[in-house]
Amino acid sequence: MQAEIITIGDELLIGQVIDTNSADIAKQLNKIGVSIYQVTSVQDDKNHILKALKDAEKYSDIIILTGGLGPTKDDITKKTIAEYFNDTLVKNQAVLQNIEELWATNVSDKILQVNKDQALVPSKSKVLMNKLGTAPGMWFDKGNKTFISLPGVPYEMDALMEIEVVPKLKEKYNFPYILHKTLLVYGIGESALAARIEDWEDALPPNIKLAYLPNLGKVRLRLSAKGANKEDIEVKVDAEVKKLLPLIKDKFFGFEDEEGSVEIIIAKQLTKTGKTLAIAESCTGGTLAGQFTKHSGASAYFNGGVVTYSTESKVNVLGVSSEVIREHSVVSGQVAESMASNALKLFNSDFAVATTGNAGPTKGESDADVGTVYIAIASKDGVFSEKFSLGNHRIKVINKAVNKAL
Amino acid sequence: MQAEIITIGDELLIGQVIDTNSADIAKQLNKIGVSIYQVTSVQDDKNHILKALKDAEKYSDIIILTGGLGPTKDDITKKTIAEYFNDTLVKNQAVLQNIEELWATNVSDKILQVNKDQALVPSKSKVLMNKLGTAPGMWFDKGNKTFISLPGVPYEMDALMEIEVVPKLKEKYNFPYILHKTLLVYGIGESALAARIEDWEDALPPNIKLAYLPNLGKVRLRLSAKGANKEDIEVKVDAEVKKLLPLIKDKFFGFEDEEGSVEIIIAKQLTKTGKTLAIAESCTGGTLAGQFTKHSGASAYFNGGVVTYSTESKVNVLGVSSEVIREHSVVSGQVAESMASNALKLFNSDFAVATTGNAGPTKGESDADVGTVYIAIASKDGVFSEKFSLGNHRIKVINKAVNKAL
Repeated sequence: MQAEIITIGDELLIGQVIDTNSADIAKQLNKIGVSIYQVTSVQDDKNHILKALKDAEKYSDIIILTGGLGPTKDDITKKTIAEYFNDTLVKNQAVLQNIEELWATNVSDKILQVNKDQALVPSKSKVLMNKLGTAPGMWFDKGNKTFISLPGVPYEMDALMEIEVVPKLKEKYNFPYILHKTLLVYGIGESALAARIEDWEDALPPNIKLAYLPNLGKVRLRLSAKGANKEDIEVKVDAEVKKLLPLIKDKFFGFEDEEGSVEIIIAKQLTKTGKTLAIAESCTGGTLAGQFTKHSGASAYFNGGVVTYSTESKVNVLGVSSEVIREHSVVSGQVAESMASNALKLFNSDFAVATTGNAGPTKGESDADVGTVYIAIASKDGVFSEKFSLGNHRIKVINKAVNKAL
Repeated sequence: MQAEIITIGDELLIGQVIDTNSADIAKQLNKIGVSIYQVTSVQDDKNHILKALKDAEKYSDIIILTGGLGPTKDDITKKTIAEYFNDTLVKNQAVLQNIEELWATNVSDKILQVNKDQALVPSKSKVLMNKLGTAPGMWFDKGNKTFISLPGVPYEMDALMEIEVVPKLKEKYNFPYILHKTLLVYGIGESALAARIEDWEDALPPNIKLAYLPNLGKVRLRLSAKGANKEDIEVKVDAEVKKLLPLIKDKFFGFEDEEGSVEIIIAKQLTKTGKTLAIAESCTGGTLAGQFTKHSGASAYFNGGVVTYSTESKVNVLGVSSEVIREHSVVSGQVAESMASNALKLFNSDFAVATTGNAGPTKGESDADVGTVYIAIASKDGVFSEKFSLGNHRIKVINKAVNKAL
């Protein structure tokens, strides 16, 4: 079972927008056992889209298009697909109603005919209702092949994949059972980890595949198994995990659950135990707090944070002593610890995390090398800090520091 | 003059790695007047790579491949290109020397034969020396067409594009001039904007193309023009911009410059005028501060911020009056204004921005509807706030609020 992803939009071909949609779609399809044969990005050009559709149909069973469904003149995907299927556009009443509801709740401008026209869909398509935007997804059956057109806006595409496309594909096709189990490993590099678990990896049964997914100081270890019998697969994967865990117990953080990342595991733990968190950031500049607050339910445990970016604000807002800063430099374990301890009190919380460092590209108010970051953790029982050297690429330093703090 | 980019690697097709290379290459080629016809991502599979090369040769003058040049067994790009050109691999002494030098300086393990074999290149290729890694770039002339193979590691690829590929392409071809001008428009939807500027758009000369790039409350309007004469193109685009500006003057924020986004324009303005900024966030939870601090140079104008997520912290940390909160609710213009005014003082800054709202999915400590966000701006001259309804998708509400605040 193979799929092709066709992403449509001039903005992709001039490098103005990085195509994240195809990776997202590939991930979701891989989970249900569909391999991606090819990703093709083309301009908003009718003949080129038609050619891409024809080529894709030759090699793939499932063809997913994203983009080009907006209300403006440069969006031509819908018309082009209709032409590909010798179809015409007809008004879909449910889509129109959805558009009008979205408009009434979210938009103050008057609704225009071009917006209402987004309710026109090819008569042969089934509508995939887009609750987050005005462009509906569309599903076309052509024998055993499936064509799916999705909006290019990433979160609209993503929601439609999850709510509509994946369940409907599972209904139409008989996929093998695939089990993925992902272990979150922090604080060890990919190759050091590989060396450590080499013997275990070499002895894996052939139907269990292992993938290393390294990303800025964390490695996700993914075990994947495929087969007809669900229980059999689960037993075999669990047995391997049981052998693996003792080898990585000092670096293992948890299993990646449905929603994903490590901050969710922390959030659940804090919420369950009724504990609260505060964050004091310098070099990570709000990004660490943002990792928690982007998920719903944060108010249950997150009291708040400060971004004390200037040295003055570390003293005035967070009460770090000027003397400590003078003596140890603003990028130091002492300052990190003081930031964490004071944030703990300021926000009256059970735990506090603090970051101070130099993300670069130039040296700041301290003499610390670019990439030097101190992270401190405080609780009512005390405070400790650790020093990290995180390279010389600003965005990477910030994100690595966030991962180290987590 | 058209190019195709072929990115090679299993990791791209399972969604493990987002392909940023093709956007980078597209940007560099667009600057010198080369349009990208198509981006194609394929697995590390010989027959598929051969097919992609053949297809690309049909439509494009310049074909750039990235990836698959590593030393391990799954990297087959080099052998496959050699086969495509009926060529054999020969040892290149200069590349071998480069590999040995890189090894001596950076790697402690002993060099292996597979590493030395990276000095084998197709005899018909010109080597593009990769000073940052062991995989050389390769250049093939086939009549007026050009094939270029680059390593997949983004910074190695990027350096080779800049130092080797772009200068050599300029030598070989006589490119037309391309001009892109992008206007940042905030606070009006894509379709309302399109309706407002329809007459102007319809009257655009045929060699000037217009694209709408909408993203959560902002729209980037991109004008593109191509031609033989640089001055002529510039005059024509400027004339169109001059006609456009009066139509959108209440929503126009600035021109997108080389680096991009609106926070950079704000940062430059603040730095130039020696003014400082503070941020007080509730619903945006650190994300607004993170938008500024991810760019270098933030310490020149960003004094700091607070993330007063809990109501208690709004009172204790930021000094918002409990009475105001009781009377007006924690999601209110009054609270937003108080947050901004108090942050201004706390961080001793010239400007302060504050957000308070309910990002959902459930109603929080206030009675405000999900999606309701108040944003306040304070300076020494006073404070004002505005109410927004930003939908019911949490991440979208947060990012729209960030864009509204900007």
